[in-house]
Amino acid sequence: MSYNSFGHVFRFTTWGESHGPALGAVIDGCPPGIALDEGDIQPWLDKRKPGQSRHTTQRREPDAVKILSGTFEGRTTGTPISLMIENADQRSKDYSDIAAKYRPGHADYTYDAKYGFRDYRGGGRSSARETAARVAAGAVARKILGETIAIRGYLVELGGIPIDSARFDEAAIDANPFFCPDPVAAAQWEEAVDKARKAGSSLGAIAECTATGVPPGWGAPVYAKLDGELAAAMMSINATKGVEIGNGFEAARISGEDNADAMRPGNDGRPRFLSNNAGGVLGGISNGDAIVARTAFKPTSSILTPVETVTREGEATEISTKGRHDPCVGIRGVPVVEAMMALVLADQMLLHRAQCG
Amino acid sequence: MSYNSFGHVFRFTTWGESHGPALGAVIDGCPPGIALDEGDIQPWLDKRKPGQSRHTTQRREPDAVKILSGTFEGRTTGTPISLMIENADQRSKDYSDIAAKYRPGHADYTYDAKYGFRDYRGGGRSSARETAARVAAGAVARKILGETIAIRGYLVELGGIPIDSARFDEAAIDANPFFCPDPVAAAQWEEAVDKARKAGSSLGAIAECTATGVPPGWGAPVYAKLDGELAAAMMSINATKGVEIGNGFEAARISGEDNADAMRPGNDGRPRFLSNNAGGVLGGISNGDAIVARTAFKPTSSILTPVETVTREGEATEISTKGRHDPCVGIRGVPVVEAMMALVLADQMLLHRAQCG
Amino acid sequence: MSYNSFGHVFRFTTWGESHGPALGAVIDGCPPGIALDEGDIQPWLDKRKPGQSRHTTQRREPDAVKILSGTFEGRTTGTPISLMIENADQRSKDYSDIAAKYRPGHADYTYDAKYGFRDYRGGGRSSARETAARVAAGAVARKILGETIAIRGYLVELGGIPIDSARFDEAAIDANPFFCPDPVAAAQWEEAVDKARKAGSSLGAIAECTATGVPPGWGAPVYAKLDGELAAAMMSINATKGVEIGNGFEAARISGEDNADAMRPGNDGRPRFLSNNAGGVLGGISNGDAIVARTAFKPTSSILTPVETVTREGEATEISTKGRHDPCVGIRGVPVVEAMMALVLADQMLLHRAQCG
Amino acid sequence: MSYNSFGHVFRFTTWGESHGPALGAVIDGCPPGIALDEGDIQPWLDKRKPGQSRHTTQRREPDAVKILSGTFEGRTTGTPISLMIENADQRSKDYSDIAAKYRPGHADYTYDAKYGFRDYRGGGRSSARETAARVAAGAVARKILGETIAIRGYLVELGGIPIDSARFDEAAIDANPFFCPDPVAAAQWEEAVDKARKAGSSLGAIAECTATGVPPGWGAPVYAKLDGELAAAMMSINATKGVEIGNGFEAARISGEDNADAMRPGNDGRPRFLSNNAGGVLGGISNGDAIVARTAFKPTSSILTPVETVTREGEATEISTKGRHDPCVGIRGVPVVEAMMALVLADQMLLHRAQCG
Repeated sequence: MSYNSFGHVFRFTTWGESHGPALGAVIDGCPPGIALDEGDIQPWLDKRKPGQSRHTTQRREPDAVKILSGTFEGRTTGTPISLMIENADQRSKDYSDIAAKYRPGHADYTYDAKYGFRDYRGGGRSSARETAARVAAGAVARKILGETIAIRGYLVELGGIPIDSARFDEAAIDANPFFCPDPVAAAQWEEAVDKARKAGSSLGAIAECTATGVPPGWGAPVYAKLDGELAAAMMSINATKGVEIGNGFEAARISGEDNADAMRPGNDGRPRFLSNNAGGVLGGISNGDAIVARTAFKPTSSILTPVETVTREGEATEISTKGRHDPCVGIRGVPVVEAMMALVLADQMLLHRAQCG
Repeated sequence: MSYNSFGHVFRFTTWGESHGPALGAVIDGCPPGIALDEGDIQPWLDKRKPGQSRHTTQRREPDAVKILSGTFEGRTTGTPISLMIENADQRSKDYSDIAAKYRPGHADYTYDAKYGFRDYRGGGRSSARETAARVAAGAVARKILGETIAIRGYLVELGGIPIDSARFDEAAIDANPFFCPDPVAAAQWEEAVDKARKAGSSLGAIAECTATGVPPGWGAPVYAKLDGELAAAMMSINATKGVEIGNGFEAARISGEDNADAMRPGNDGRPRFLSNNAGGVLGGISNGDAIVARTAFKPTSSILTPVETVTREGEATEISTKGRHDPCVGIRGVPVVEAMMALVLADQMLLHRAQCG
Repeated sequence: MSYNSFGHVFRFTTWGESHGPALGAVIDGCPPGIALDEGDIQPWLDKRKPGQSRHTTQRREPDAVKILSGTFEGRTTGTPISLMIENADQRSKDYSDIAAKYRPGHADYTYDAKYGFRDYRGGGRSSARETAARVAAGAVARKILGETIAIRGYLVELGGIPIDSARFDEAAIDANPFFCPDPVAAAQWEEAVDKARKAGSSLGAIAECTATGVPPGWGAPVYAKLDGELAAAMMSINATKGVEIGNGFEAARISGEDNADAMRPGNDGRPRFLSNNAGGVLGGISNGDAIVARTAFKPTSSILTPVETVTREGEATEISTKGRHDPCVGIRGVPVVEAMMALVLADQMLLHRAQCG
Repeated sequence: MSYNSFGHVFRFTTWGESHGPALGAVIDGCPPGIALDEGDIQPWLDKRKPGQSRHTTQRREPDAVKILSGTFEGRTTGTPISLMIENADQRSKDYSDIAAKYRPGHADYTYDAKYGFRDYRGGGRSSARETAARVAAGAVARKILGETIAIRGYLVELGGIPIDSARFDEAAIDANPFFCPDPVAAAQWEEAVDKARKAGSSLGAIAECTATGVPPGWGAPVYAKLDGELAAAMMSINATKGVEIGNGFEAARISGEDNADAMRPGNDGRPRFLSNNAGGVLGGISNGDAIVARTAFKPTSSILTPVETVTREGEATEISTKGRHDPCVGIRGVPVVEAMMALVLADQMLLHRAQCG
């Protein structure tokens, strides 16, 4: 990994700011011969696109992706794939407040501390708009993984309200604006988000992402473990504060007997696990069961409620962040965690092939 | 990061198996001129050393480190520092059971699935003995960071019993065999661990690690974020299932107002935060407050209680893991999370210096 | 280094094909606060631009660069700098000959062998058009290095005709279309290139590049040696077959006494060398003297003279490459070797700062 | 590549100083299941070992390698292979002269300039003893490549005396102490080396290394080109000043027609080249023909003849380097260039497999 690149042999680099002319990703190491055009990428960007319901930011971005290199006659050539998304809705705005004051919970102060100044327009590089580039790259990763691997993200908790796993219904996920697999919880979340938005407040959420169909053997000891890579991937997403694999923190609270995933012979000769506390990873290597990762998103830091802060000059003041913001950034985080799961898996697939043939 | 290397410009590579002749680390990119001898490293290894109380494995390892290169007249030269720890207590043992059956929760099956076979003696490379090499490397990282940065690890929960933060006493941490900052909880943990050990069971734990004195500005967007690196670092440790920064998963459950760390001018002109929900990181960059990371350790997978499993040949069987094991691997995980914190910070210190001077 | 990225902490990634919509570079790790706009980059691209004399390809490309990210109010922000150059003159052409037959000396066969197929339009990714992206990135590297470091490239030999170093005149370099520092040789080269072009033949050349003002101490043992990095950099340029540092292959032919660069105290307390056979590098680290690298370019493989070859189907045939080609690619290689010198030095400057402060 | 690591997916890291207790290499990414024990490595080290004839340094080193990790029951496990060679003949010596004065042509001054001080005992890390670690790693690389790929190094020129290629006899290479394929030249070289040694002088040499059996398709555009990697690899060896691929600098002097390697159908359906000016690489990718690389070694910098120099304090002085030195380091460079060829090819083999399956 590098500052703005991720991956070992399937590696992508993202670039772009919230209010610059465009943003994009360069994908390196993609296998040749894979069918790929913009139509393979756009649906995933559409899923992440802002302004699709009243529950997300009202910034209007078509997020239309262009492939600038790396394909020929509809197939990947093995050379770098350059993806570009032009920014459309860089609404003319008065940034003097954000330029002069640090928004608590944002990267305003830390960028200034690091670089000596910053592009304050919409958060510049620290904006979650960067995640559009990942989602585009993730679509390419999905093509590499093929159809036998299914990646599915959804929220399991929003504003402190968890889903009831007994009501888990995969079909429900796309039937509400929250990627919620529990229709009852979805209704509760709608109410909570409406209330928070009207109050000028914001809410956090927990996203879960699973990948089924991953064969045993992907991932590598010790510093390229599959779960270590997933942790890095998820924690690189804006507003994330925690990552769990399998039963995660719960594992710390139960006994060795209760945590053990017993094994039985499968019909195909491959062992099966009677439970999946491990989340599909043992010793950093996939075990053939579903890979399960959960990511915690903090509540959006941009809130109308005034918060004490300081100016760039070090004077005490307060700030109230107006403008177009997601009341719960975790919602639009779902397509992003899916993309990161795909990107990690595609890289590990190739890395495994490198070493083990 | 590579299979067995970690870090960007301050990078270390570890090698060695549980029952091989030795294990070690090669540290590359260490600044020159730093005073370093074995006496700077040994105390940290001693802290992690097994067999210091009845609550950890009874394997006897002196874990004596040798510096084989990279220093001259007691100072680092800027060239690779090779550290070696010879294995002493590779007790002669019958491994036929482990060789033939997969231990649930261990990497036995996944190593076989990946590599086609495995070194089954004590878990081979998947053994937590690898962490001795990290602790040795971490001691060098501490020397780079200097005395103004203080890194402190401890357990905040064991077997589902949390500490009471009102009783947090830093002095208590080294006064009990659990790195527990709450003397009351320490007594409860002692009872729980004794009970688990006698029952042939095991317990999980949650370790917290803080780093104070880190200046604002370390870490880098987007894929070398300080919290992303910490997540990768902690999740690469054996038996970990979750990582949190700051208030972590709790952030997903509170409102934007409650989560906001308000800022006030500090006496030295630098802003101060009135709370530290962020855990010292905003936008992937340190904010000057204490860096706070928590890591969840699952209960030791090696338990006496028989668990259903399969043989290498795919036959149903069960296994009961005898031998010398930590009833709670989280305890000895504390020096390891400290080491990883130091290693990440030293690398980010140099990386920041590279870009920003 | 990765497939399409180069550098350690100052790292750039290039993308794009000869006949795609655009090509570009993403620069990561650039220090913040450096004044940068398109005007800093364009002159170097103009120097490399085709069609400036009858001695280079007649393809007409404005090679106009756009900065898409990484700057704010005319200064670098420390985030990725995305540079894009749109392809203008993708002349409609019949590629059936190139698509069906392998051009000897080109990458046609090897791309097919590696990837199973290839983008045959103008050589696709294997085209020297990729070097425009490097030249753009190199312009940014020059800004990092600052004005005290001067990088100068020129040809020292063309078509087997060497310059006479006694006539070396830096002012002459830009006064002829060959970057030739010897006006007499320039006249001979003009005749040779005209003759080759008319004959449908091509010529090779040797470029020399020097960097003065590099302080002692840049570069690092053992696998990031300054000369090793330069060798990799130069040999990654299209059509290169050899790299020398200092007196290069000549060093292999003289005695230790003759090769020794004697040292004398300098007026500023720093040692000076009485000769520079070393080319400014000792043990992989700069010694304060001028860095000197020479790169051999083979004659353009695209020639009108028919050459025996085979078709994709393995049939014997012959090919005569018509179209717009440089009769001597080494000429336009000069701005490219300068760019690579700048890119290596900027990276090593930051890498040195990382480790040694 | 990192400071002391080389390679992408098959990566090795070396450590150790000339007069430290030991030196070694850690190999990461080795495929599992390959038969490997010390007997596979020792013969290559023996070939490089000093003191085998009067023409190399008289330092006596058994260079006995130990495998400390990464194998089990005689096969590689896929985990890091740690190789260690203990230094035996660290002869007690007075280093005060070298400590106080800079030896021209050595890294003494540049190490001091970079790091502020240096381990002056035998050159410390800058000593060519480091190449023993590469040779050991290279032996592992050969095992990965298998028997169908043959790597052969030899000198083609020594002290300005070239071999006559008409007399090339592979069997002769091991029949003289100079790895010389031309018995007549070998006799001339013997005389030249004897003369130089007696005169307290030294000589340079040019080593050629070929690899046959490499399939077409290895290597990758643009910054992981096979020839770029070879250039970096060879130029990282001590005392090297130039690298050529195929006909190298000669290519710059001939016409496009003369340089073209015409292609004809092979009996197996794969194209064949009627000449190999390309040295087996086109567009950075192997073309199935023999890979050919030549490396120029300067004359040993340690000579008895006094040379003007300066002290660490900046005073003018002169130095005459006594002690045990190779009169021509290029001789023992032969096993090293072979090792680097093997290491680059093994990495590229795995890298190709990663991307292209």
